[in-house]
Amino acid sequence: MDLDAIIDRDFEARVAELKEWIRIPSVSALPEFHGEVVRSAAWAAGQLKGMGFPKAEVVKTETLPLVYGEWCPYPGKPTLLIYGHCDVQPPDPLAQWVSPPFEPVAREGKLYARGANDNKGQSMCWMGACKALLARDGKLPINVKVLMECEEEVGGTAIARHVAAHAEALACDAVLVVDTPMPGADKPAICVSLRGLVYTEITVTGARTDMHSGQYGGVAPNPIQALALLLARLKGEDGIIQIPELMAAIPDVTAEETAAWAADVLHYGDSLKEQMGTGQLFGQNGVSPYARVGLYPTLEVHGIRGGFVGEGAKTVIPASAVAKVSLRLPPGVSAKPVAGWFEAAVRKQLPKGFGVEVKVLSTGEGMNVAWDAPAMKLARDAMAEVYGKPPLPMRMGGSIPVCADFARHLKVPVLLVGFGLPDDDLHAPNEKYDLAQLKQGMRVIGRLVVKLSLL
Amino acid sequence: MDLDAIIDRDFEARVAELKEWIRIPSVSALPEFHGEVVRSAAWAAGQLKGMGFPKAEVVKTETLPLVYGEWCPYPGKPTLLIYGHCDVQPPDPLAQWVSPPFEPVAREGKLYARGANDNKGQSMCWMGACKALLARDGKLPINVKVLMECEEEVGGTAIARHVAAHAEALACDAVLVVDTPMPGADKPAICVSLRGLVYTEITVTGARTDMHSGQYGGVAPNPIQALALLLARLKGEDGIIQIPELMAAIPDVTAEETAAWAADVLHYGDSLKEQMGTGQLFGQNGVSPYARVGLYPTLEVHGIRGGFVGEGAKTVIPASAVAKVSLRLPPGVSAKPVAGWFEAAVRKQLPKGFGVEVKVLSTGEGMNVAWDAPAMKLARDAMAEVYGKPPLPMRMGGSIPVCADFARHLKVPVLLVGFGLPDDDLHAPNEKYDLAQLKQGMRVIGRLVVKLSLL
Repeated sequence: MDLDAIIDRDFEARVAELKEWIRIPSVSALPEFHGEVVRSAAWAAGQLKGMGFPKAEVVKTETLPLVYGEWCPYPGKPTLLIYGHCDVQPPDPLAQWVSPPFEPVAREGKLYARGANDNKGQSMCWMGACKALLARDGKLPINVKVLMECEEEVGGTAIARHVAAHAEALACDAVLVVDTPMPGADKPAICVSLRGLVYTEITVTGARTDMHSGQYGGVAPNPIQALALLLARLKGEDGIIQIPELMAAIPDVTAEETAAWAADVLHYGDSLKEQMGTGQLFGQNGVSPYARVGLYPTLEVHGIRGGFVGEGAKTVIPASAVAKVSLRLPPGVSAKPVAGWFEAAVRKQLPKGFGVEVKVLSTGEGMNVAWDAPAMKLARDAMAEVYGKPPLPMRMGGSIPVCADFARHLKVPVLLVGFGLPDDDLHAPNEKYDLAQLKQGMRVIGRLVVKLSLL
Repeated sequence: MDLDAIIDRDFEARVAELKEWIRIPSVSALPEFHGEVVRSAAWAAGQLKGMGFPKAEVVKTETLPLVYGEWCPYPGKPTLLIYGHCDVQPPDPLAQWVSPPFEPVAREGKLYARGANDNKGQSMCWMGACKALLARDGKLPINVKVLMECEEEVGGTAIARHVAAHAEALACDAVLVVDTPMPGADKPAICVSLRGLVYTEITVTGARTDMHSGQYGGVAPNPIQALALLLARLKGEDGIIQIPELMAAIPDVTAEETAAWAADVLHYGDSLKEQMGTGQLFGQNGVSPYARVGLYPTLEVHGIRGGFVGEGAKTVIPASAVAKVSLRLPPGVSAKPVAGWFEAAVRKQLPKGFGVEVKVLSTGEGMNVAWDAPAMKLARDAMAEVYGKPPLPMRMGGSIPVCADFARHLKVPVLLVGFGLPDDDLHAPNEKYDLAQLKQGMRVIGRLVVKLSLL
């Protein structure tokens, strides 16, 4: 029986397993859900055990655990290290979900739930591929190691420490990461760069306590207003970030890439507008949308809070206001100096008389991958066979910090082969995963695992 | 026995009553507390009944009730209408209270609780004065009407409709409002103007849903950023509000008032800085702090909310963001056109490509009171007798919208004689009322009620 037929035959069983996993609300950002995060890790380890991995365990760390599995019976053959994560984003705002975030429901061929794509659905691609190979051959054709984490959504560093400390045990010929999207279901692509990330929390303070706007309005410091002024100064309507060091660090690109952007086979700008439901692109005019999303830095406010936000009216001038602000970094720009640049810019732009604290909540390094690495060529072939056309190289705007750790410590190509679609609404209400893409993903990864035996 | 001796003798009983009232958490801004608001009204009506008011009732309205009482046995004599309110501000942020907001506790001569000043403590001044007069004489020396509301903190309009509809029944020779502060315990003052208020909620919208900042950061509309830009454009660090019609409406003041501001017997700017715990005054440089607080308009953000504000990091670009913004209006400037000016300014200053909705949550008119009105002169005398020096005329920056209704429909002077202190932290955590001021207030109001029989 060929691999695709087995994938077809067992597909409903794989979807049922995925739903079981999704029902575990493994929200790493919320401490009260950490028990569920551990359950999610145990579930993944259980899957590896069920497949017959001789080693399959939940590995304790100082924070949330890792999952590690090994199927390495062939001393001479190539080894693939597969990465995934067991945690998910918080589901809020809950009111905007059509169906509850942790009760997966399929509608029109798409599975809706928190984690349906990121990263449980995407992980099921390689789990399903391995299960199909095992069902057909009773064994995998190469050595496979699996390393999963539970802190991807909170910038946790347990896996980074683990990779640095266990580079020898994790030795491999390539790393596979199924955590990226393609531009469309008929537009195969493989990711060639990731942006880095510095995630901060800014607290602006004014008077000693909350004040009545009648009694003090006109002479009082308003930290919300100061925060608004600060944010407006850090990035104006022109989208240019007022951190000169960061803007100067944007790398040059090849003439080939510039030409590809100009050719714009993906109609990328139009596609982004459609996905966002907006009549225009925002940000820095005159810069290609490929560059705005994949190459340029960003400064985004993810959340803001201050004063009275309940129903009705309260005439308070609050004593403080808080914003969560992240910077995405051009691939190749290290996160290390950026937090310092940012804090200096905040202090420079803050209106006079206010206090400010900048906390760095997490950082992650970006990465570049060589399009011509031998393992990458096999991934390109596997994808071309399944989709009937060669994949495009794509710069991804997101950050998967561990990829940089893999590249640095294991010194092998990191294959970012993912099957998400642009409208999957990761990190948003009604996150979904296209079940046809799940099946294609199993097919591609199955072929890739077979091909890697040729390395 | 003289009035002050009776006030002294019964003071603890009055404080006990005040504590009983405060324990009713009558938060009008929060619908789930509306039952408590009604209890608070019933408590006040019960006090009037207990004093022997022949009429003392809770009056239903379309929204929250009023309290009305009448002691009018003397057809020929002057009538005083006393106003107060039974509702309080929300207590949040709860974590900043030293003692729970609805469990009144006296520390160092000050009573700490939500409503300790605003307006339950201040109302106890006139309740205590009337009780002392009744204890001494078995009757009041003039006709007294009492009208209280339960929506002062939410800009409710029930009382405005009531005053407009029942001007004849409310006919009187003066209105007494005990809801304002004095500049210090040794600095008696009577309020001669109030600012108006327009309270709004601004919602800025961007994309169709929340988005992942990795996937869309660089081209996505960020409504928090747009809101920050908008707020920064509506009022810069120079404190000048970018609503030309409003700035043009600031009235001229007399040379006498300008001179009084320059003389600055209250050391007002220094006093405000000390109260706020700041090293500087904010707002419009070059404008007297008396004018900034009492005469000039304000634009203040009272609350802001958008995106992810929980613990930790979430890389979302939200679909919308909300701010509560109020304008205080120069006395004499009607609130009616201002909401329109504001909405036009918002639409003009909003960054391109975003949606916006401006909801007016409430409005209130400001007011001027004549310093030389006969009833005002009696109030000035009463205050001078108790404090040993004549009161200063003060412009107050707050808004008590019903005062404008009283002035308009009843056509009598509104006496804003209050005993709060600048550091009472109204609308903030650890609101308090100085118990010595409570007693002084009873003495002043007792004398005023006696003097009004001379009108």
